[in-house]
Amino acid sequence: MADVEVRLEDGSRRRYSSGTALAEVAADAGRSDALVARMDGRVVDLAAPLAADAAVEFLSFDDPAGREVYWHSSAHLLAQAVKQLFPEAKLAIGPPIDDGFYYDIDIGRPFAPQDLDRIEARMKELARADQPIERVEIPRDEAIRLYREAGERYKLELLEGIPDARVSFYRQDGFLDMCRGPHLPSTGRIKAIKLLSTSGAYWRGDERQPQLARIYGITFPDDARLADHLHLLEEAKRRDHRKLGPALELFMFHETAPGMPYWLPRGLFVLNQLVEFWRGEHDRRGYQEIRTPLVNKQALYETSGHWEYFREDMFLIETPDEENYALKPMNCPNAMVVFSSKTRSYRDLPLRFSDTAPLHRFERSGTLAGLLRVREFSQDDAHIFVAEEQIGPEYQEILEMTERFYSVFGIGYRLRLSTRPQVFLGDPVVWDRAEAELQRILEASGKPYFLAPGEGAFYGPKIDILMSDSLGREWQTGTVQLDFQMPLRFRLSYSDKDGREKTPAVIHRVIYGSLERFIGILIEHYAGALPLWLSPEQARVLSITDRHAAYAQQVAARLKEAGVRAEVDAGSERISHKIRDAQLMKIPYMLVVGEREAESGRVAVRSREGGDLGGMALEDFLARVEREVSARS
Amino acid sequence: MADVEVRLEDGSRRRYSSGTALAEVAADAGRSDALVARMDGRVVDLAAPLAADAAVEFLSFDDPAGREVYWHSSAHLLAQAVKQLFPEAKLAIGPPIDDGFYYDIDIGRPFAPQDLDRIEARMKELARADQPIERVEIPRDEAIRLYREAGERYKLELLEGIPDARVSFYRQDGFLDMCRGPHLPSTGRIKAIKLLSTSGAYWRGDERQPQLARIYGITFPDDARLADHLHLLEEAKRRDHRKLGPALELFMFHETAPGMPYWLPRGLFVLNQLVEFWRGEHDRRGYQEIRTPLVNKQALYETSGHWEYFREDMFLIETPDEENYALKPMNCPNAMVVFSSKTRSYRDLPLRFSDTAPLHRFERSGTLAGLLRVREFSQDDAHIFVAEEQIGPEYQEILEMTERFYSVFGIGYRLRLSTRPQVFLGDPVVWDRAEAELQRILEASGKPYFLAPGEGAFYGPKIDILMSDSLGREWQTGTVQLDFQMPLRFRLSYSDKDGREKTPAVIHRVIYGSLERFIGILIEHYAGALPLWLSPEQARVLSITDRHAAYAQQVAARLKEAGVRAEVDAGSERISHKIRDAQLMKIPYMLVVGEREAESGRVAVRSREGGDLGGMALEDFLARVEREVSARS
Repeated sequence: MADVEVRLEDGSRRRYSSGTALAEVAADAGRSDALVARMDGRVVDLAAPLAADAAVEFLSFDDPAGREVYWHSSAHLLAQAVKQLFPEAKLAIGPPIDDGFYYDIDIGRPFAPQDLDRIEARMKELARADQPIERVEIPRDEAIRLYREAGERYKLELLEGIPDARVSFYRQDGFLDMCRGPHLPSTGRIKAIKLLSTSGAYWRGDERQPQLARIYGITFPDDARLADHLHLLEEAKRRDHRKLGPALELFMFHETAPGMPYWLPRGLFVLNQLVEFWRGEHDRRGYQEIRTPLVNKQALYETSGHWEYFREDMFLIETPDEENYALKPMNCPNAMVVFSSKTRSYRDLPLRFSDTAPLHRFERSGTLAGLLRVREFSQDDAHIFVAEEQIGPEYQEILEMTERFYSVFGIGYRLRLSTRPQVFLGDPVVWDRAEAELQRILEASGKPYFLAPGEGAFYGPKIDILMSDSLGREWQTGTVQLDFQMPLRFRLSYSDKDGREKTPAVIHRVIYGSLERFIGILIEHYAGALPLWLSPEQARVLSITDRHAAYAQQVAARLKEAGVRAEVDAGSERISHKIRDAQLMKIPYMLVVGEREAESGRVAVRSREGGDLGGMALEDFLARVEREVSARS
Repeated sequence: MADVEVRLEDGSRRRYSSGTALAEVAADAGRSDALVARMDGRVVDLAAPLAADAAVEFLSFDDPAGREVYWHSSAHLLAQAVKQLFPEAKLAIGPPIDDGFYYDIDIGRPFAPQDLDRIEARMKELARADQPIERVEIPRDEAIRLYREAGERYKLELLEGIPDARVSFYRQDGFLDMCRGPHLPSTGRIKAIKLLSTSGAYWRGDERQPQLARIYGITFPDDARLADHLHLLEEAKRRDHRKLGPALELFMFHETAPGMPYWLPRGLFVLNQLVEFWRGEHDRRGYQEIRTPLVNKQALYETSGHWEYFREDMFLIETPDEENYALKPMNCPNAMVVFSSKTRSYRDLPLRFSDTAPLHRFERSGTLAGLLRVREFSQDDAHIFVAEEQIGPEYQEILEMTERFYSVFGIGYRLRLSTRPQVFLGDPVVWDRAEAELQRILEASGKPYFLAPGEGAFYGPKIDILMSDSLGREWQTGTVQLDFQMPLRFRLSYSDKDGREKTPAVIHRVIYGSLERFIGILIEHYAGALPLWLSPEQARVLSITDRHAAYAQQVAARLKEAGVRAEVDAGSERISHKIRDAQLMKIPYMLVVGEREAESGRVAVRSREGGDLGGMALEDFLARVEREVSARS
């Protein structure tokens, strides 16, 4: 057999006989953690043979591509266990997902919790048996006969969509599943296994098709990672803003307006505080706030291009005797109209228009998710019209604002620079200059950032803000997009120093992103315990008995006078009950007042986090609150 | 002839022979100002004969109904003059309007300004001739023949719509015009005459019909009143918010969103200031602000009744795979949803939800008028849920707030109580009690008010706020409506002290009314010179020459630091030019700085109203501004 050369990631080179399995190379390289390999860019089984010289990279569970395979094989393991326990089960599809995997299965009924326990136990047995996982290729006809005999109607349907003469399957023990692969070398690699939940799912996502039962699961190479993950899921559930929002009376939803939040008084307060903070910061930096129509004629969106590319995502309005209208999905076109309403000169640039008008997008009802994906939302939006040489300094300023905003919330983030895609509009020289400038600014900012080459929008490069919450989850919030196109579509111009008319570039930018989404994330980040400055109710005065109700009112009046948002609980419940109520509502401070406090004019302070802070003079408490609020802690 | 008895307004009674003309009665009663009479409730010519006992009231130009007749006869006079000067002219319709009258006429072309001069001169001659105006009744056939011979195609079309066997005409000299009447006794009553303008108007308002020329005019019984009116028109034109708004860069409109204002930075500042003032006042009074979805399903509006009664005025949204939606035209239905989202008890009442969400109504494009009639607007809205015994105290509180709001703007107003209409829903006993209570509160308020019997909404009585602007024009702004129905439609309830479930009443109320409309009125009221606290730019620092630019910037920085909204004009124009610019923008204070000011650290202050206030120390100026702002003057 001919010799072939393998180049490994560390730069080392090894020679093997042609036909040697990659597993052998992994063993030689001491990579016992290898699950699959990337050979010349393609992810393949470790059993795959070396056929020619190749660059080989071994992928472990720590590589996203490795993890994907791990969960894909776990889905097969799930199906194998199900077929052993429910031989009549018909399998549909079982892909890996962001966090684990699922399999859609038809057993003519939903799975019960005890079914999941049995299946999970069987999966563990099958994993311990460490069965080799093998790839086999079967002629298409044979595959059809196989599935027809087994009555696997969903697999047969899938087969219909595969034109190849031979079809690949993966086999472990007697279980065979049609699959493109790749897969783990054996079931024994799957160590820690947990089935999480089950729900209904229509075949092909189509409600006219049969309903299947979907089982979700997750697996890890060790128990500690599984335990961590389950803890994270538990924490995320406890912090779920969709539960905390209504419980803390921040917002609610109603069936007559799916995906469109009802802001209750406490939640609207938070939203207004965020807008007020935003407005103050932007005023100081020379932004000018505008508010533009929510409903616009089709003609506006034809000019902007939204009519052609975004119409499906818009709420459209037909009127009896006029052109069609649409609810605005973004503010850009209207900002262009305002720019063009006056003659502009280089002296007006950079011209910064900010706008928090409500936006509407017709998200499909299945994709709605609390405040994280809504149909009505507002952004801390701005459109900045700049001359080319102002792009750099303006991005610099925006990154400084970003740092200011996120540090106020004590939230970490990193930045992603997405550069010129294959298909783009505009002058490549201008793109190059702009990208180089943005990268220089990112470098100088000292903030963590990474590149997403070729992932910019067709109209310009962009920088996205990826924030990490207290559970370590990452969310894309803000985005700062450079746009050379929209100003052309609206024929914008300004007269430059030399008297010539030039086209400005525009920076579309949000820092919070969608305020609704940002609040949803904040609620989860803080587990509902919003910082003092954002808390709609900062202090609650609790009277120990009815006799102290008057003093409680007096204390609350003084607090309000000093600008503290205070309420009184002078009900007839026991004090322990009142404290529990206030804790449940995540009120930062509880001021307990009884005989002793009323006589001495003091208050006994409990904090939401620290418990009992002891007695103090009311004025001392006020000073404490003022200190914390001005530090926005 | 038989005797008949006439009862006059002053209570006196007179006897006349049957058939006596009312003109004779007027003469006997010394009512030389009488234009027409109201006989047993019906307005009739003074030439009308007494046929039976009757209550008679003589109407002068000071009565709205008298004024209407005056302008109606003036329209005939206009038509008479036109027919003399343009015998080929075809007449269409010529009604009285709120301020004067118009006539639509076809002369195959528009009227030129010199045409109007000639017509006005001829009208004056005809008035001076004091021709008697007589009513004649003609058989329908004869009327048709008459108009057919004259080629009066529009009158013929109108005749087609009149089924009566005999048709009434009015004649003065040779001029005959088909008309129901009544009219003045003679043309001589019309003393002061002015034709104001001419414009195109489609026959029957239908653009597929011929275009006619409309002439607008106004007349008065004396020259002084005409002069006053023309001055008012001139003033109103000077103050027209549709011109001042864009000129002062407060707002603009664009063809892609008719009737939906673009708020420019200065205007949005004003709107936000009004909302902030509103929010502060309402917080203090226990209102809770909410924000509810702008887009709602048809089902919500079916429950509220809007789908049945208001659909034509709503922007409707069809979606590919869901029930139809509509943009909300008012906040009420959503406030009901929020009320019903929780169990409510008597302890929660009165429950006051305020909401300034943007509303949309599909006003027909011909009716749009700047900010006064728009398609997108927001209200200082609130819905207050009350037990019956809380209706009175709550109205009391709202009237106190009204007084607070309008006195801040130095605006006078009166109140109108509209009571139970013929067709109404609910318990008449509750209506009676509520109306008596409202009247008692109005009485006690000491504010001017009047009754509009039977003009309440079918769901409850209401109090409207009618404000008077600086030109003496009256505008309906706020309204406070009691509603017994909507809570029933939404099956709202609260548990009362006795444990029983009861239905609350709801008070719908706005004090500003539409914020857009209110700002439009404010702009006209102040002729654009907004009070200091509402001014987006409170002071402008003007450097006399380039050498003082640095000091100007320094002054502005100090002003901003002290919270004054200040800008700098350090351009190279002459100081007189800069002052004129600032005056045009109605900036309250101009601080002129030159050599002397820079050396002494002072400013030379000019006020928008008072002109030169002389030099002062900057801190003295700041103290002055602070004083005025806190007094909201």
